[in-house]
Amino acid sequence: MDGKLGKDYLKNYLIKADPLLDRYLQAKIHNSYKSGKIPGKILERFLVSCRKGKKIRGTLMTLAYELFGGKNTAAILEASIAIEIFHFAILVHDDIQDSDYLRRGLPTLHKQFEDDEKGKASLVDPAHYGMAMALNAGISGYFMALEVLMKSKFSAVGKIQAGHIFADYAIRLADGQALDIANIMKKNISEKDILTVLRLKSAEYTGVLPMLLGASLAGVSDKKRLRALKAYGLAFGWAFQIQDDVLGIYGKEDKLGKPVGSDISDGKNTLFISYVKKHGTKQQKEYIKKVLGKAKLTKSELKRTQSILKESGAYDYVINLGWKYVEKGKKEISKITKDKKMQDLLESLIVYMMERTL
Amino acid sequence: MDGKLGKDYLKNYLIKADPLLDRYLQAKIHNSYKSGKIPGKILERFLVSCRKGKKIRGTLMTLAYELFGGKNTAAILEASIAIEIFHFAILVHDDIQDSDYLRRGLPTLHKQFEDDEKGKASLVDPAHYGMAMALNAGISGYFMALEVLMKSKFSAVGKIQAGHIFADYAIRLADGQALDIANIMKKNISEKDILTVLRLKSAEYTGVLPMLLGASLAGVSDKKRLRALKAYGLAFGWAFQIQDDVLGIYGKEDKLGKPVGSDISDGKNTLFISYVKKHGTKQQKEYIKKVLGKAKLTKSELKRTQSILKESGAYDYVINLGWKYVEKGKKEISKITKDKKMQDLLESLIVYMMERTL
Repeated sequence: MDGKLGKDYLKNYLIKADPLLDRYLQAKIHNSYKSGKIPGKILERFLVSCRKGKKIRGTLMTLAYELFGGKNTAAILEASIAIEIFHFAILVHDDIQDSDYLRRGLPTLHKQFEDDEKGKASLVDPAHYGMAMALNAGISGYFMALEVLMKSKFSAVGKIQAGHIFADYAIRLADGQALDIANIMKKNISEKDILTVLRLKSAEYTGVLPMLLGASLAGVSDKKRLRALKAYGLAFGWAFQIQDDVLGIYGKEDKLGKPVGSDISDGKNTLFISYVKKHGTKQQKEYIKKVLGKAKLTKSELKRTQSILKESGAYDYVINLGWKYVEKGKKEISKITKDKKMQDLLESLIVYMMERTL
Repeated sequence: MDGKLGKDYLKNYLIKADPLLDRYLQAKIHNSYKSGKIPGKILERFLVSCRKGKKIRGTLMTLAYELFGGKNTAAILEASIAIEIFHFAILVHDDIQDSDYLRRGLPTLHKQFEDDEKGKASLVDPAHYGMAMALNAGISGYFMALEVLMKSKFSAVGKIQAGHIFADYAIRLADGQALDIANIMKKNISEKDILTVLRLKSAEYTGVLPMLLGASLAGVSDKKRLRALKAYGLAFGWAFQIQDDVLGIYGKEDKLGKPVGSDISDGKNTLFISYVKKHGTKQQKEYIKKVLGKAKLTKSELKRTQSILKESGAYDYVINLGWKYVEKGKKEISKITKDKKMQDLLESLIVYMMERTL
């Protein structure tokens, strides 16, 4: 089984969800323009970039709802944009923290507002102004996501359960983000530390949260199936994040939508880095130490880094780990559903996570 | 009627709510320590400062619930800490935006984390690190507030309504915060612009939001009473914010918990400033222009500013405006409740907002 079925399913979700995202956000933009030009502009820019996501999380939320017997397809599509809005809000705040300047092929939100004010005489530094605007964009995003969830057409009890799960995972995600920055400051970082960040900040949040939201809205009660769904979601999230890290170093900027190697220049202690630090030759270690956290990598530095990661065995190690998670996730599928078509879809989707080339 | 009854009611709320806030946040701190030392520390510091609030919003939420016939006092007290947690989260993000260093008598959260790393060699600038940690603290705060609301012991329908209102006002608040910063950049700012910020960022959020939350959880249905409650809440919020601005310039730092005159050094276009800009003498205008946005005011600069605000008539204008809102709010009281005791309490509370001396 390859990832084709999964890839098509994702594309199909995009086509249906985008108009719903547009409709909701256009109404919010209209409202915020009533407050003033700047609030309106903030949400307008939010929409443009939010729209460009791969929407894996919205897809998973919809899929889990259907897996657990939900029949109101229109309502779950509408509700699923909550997780896409939330996700982009988190990225806006994450980009502030990482001082990243490119996201989804556009300047990050804080950079867009910074650029507006550059060169103007003002009491506020343009970079600080940009940060403040993006900070508020993120806050609006969190509460737009909540609003979408609360007004979705499901039972009040299902929505309360979903709200509860949403809050729980968002707090864990914030913990993960804090650790991600704190780890940059650490001299010696263990692979366990790195895996904790990836689990909180990415695997749980990308895979488990959306699936639990979908299942809650379907009114799930079977604990055994739910346990299997969580395990699949977690494995899915790992595979996704690992391949994301791989593409972040070996992808192409135009498709990646952000600079290749930004994890390296952000100084992030990724699985790649920790592998080299542990298993690399003296020379390899020294080179990695030199480029880690360097504001901008030159082309040759990036190329050299890519080679070192391959030569040291880090690349194979990380890729293998990703496929291990795929296998782990596949084992849960028969416990989630007996429907052969759905089983195939779940398998193809998780395989696609590692097959992605952008 | 003076503000004594209101003052006592607020104090009484504090005594009951603080242990609930402690219990909830201690459990969250415990959880976050499982993720790592830093996430635990973030919530620990969040609790210390969150606890020190005046808790006006939690009080209003509880009061509105009782006004609308709610009988489960224990449950509303438990639920009302949601708005206090949310409020502190907003302050944490607001302090980042305003680069403020003192809040409730302690360094702001971003400053506390900045200070931890000062002087250490690291890939991350201490100020940036502090900002990132406070950013995550705020995110956790928003979702802790949501969690408290979702798990409160009220009907699912009431909680959904409350969640909806919560989202709506939080988005408007973010709009107001964005405008607040954007207004600093403006050359010519109208009193209308200033009032819009105050309404979104403060009056609606402080007065209307908590009261609507309480009323929703009580299961309110009478639209006329609800309209009066909203009008009272709005007037209450205005009176609160106006006196807050007054105390921010004429209070004492030890009681204020932040530097006196921080609005001036933040460059904020407050009602005071716009009055002087419009009605002041040439000399007064020039002086205000000189100190507005100055990083730190000297004692004599602060004194001179205080005198100018009084001499120009700005002080009287602002104080009178505050009392006008008190009168406006009082007119709504008989439409909210026929209970004489409750009427007295509502009147005393709004009077107390302007009587406060810290």
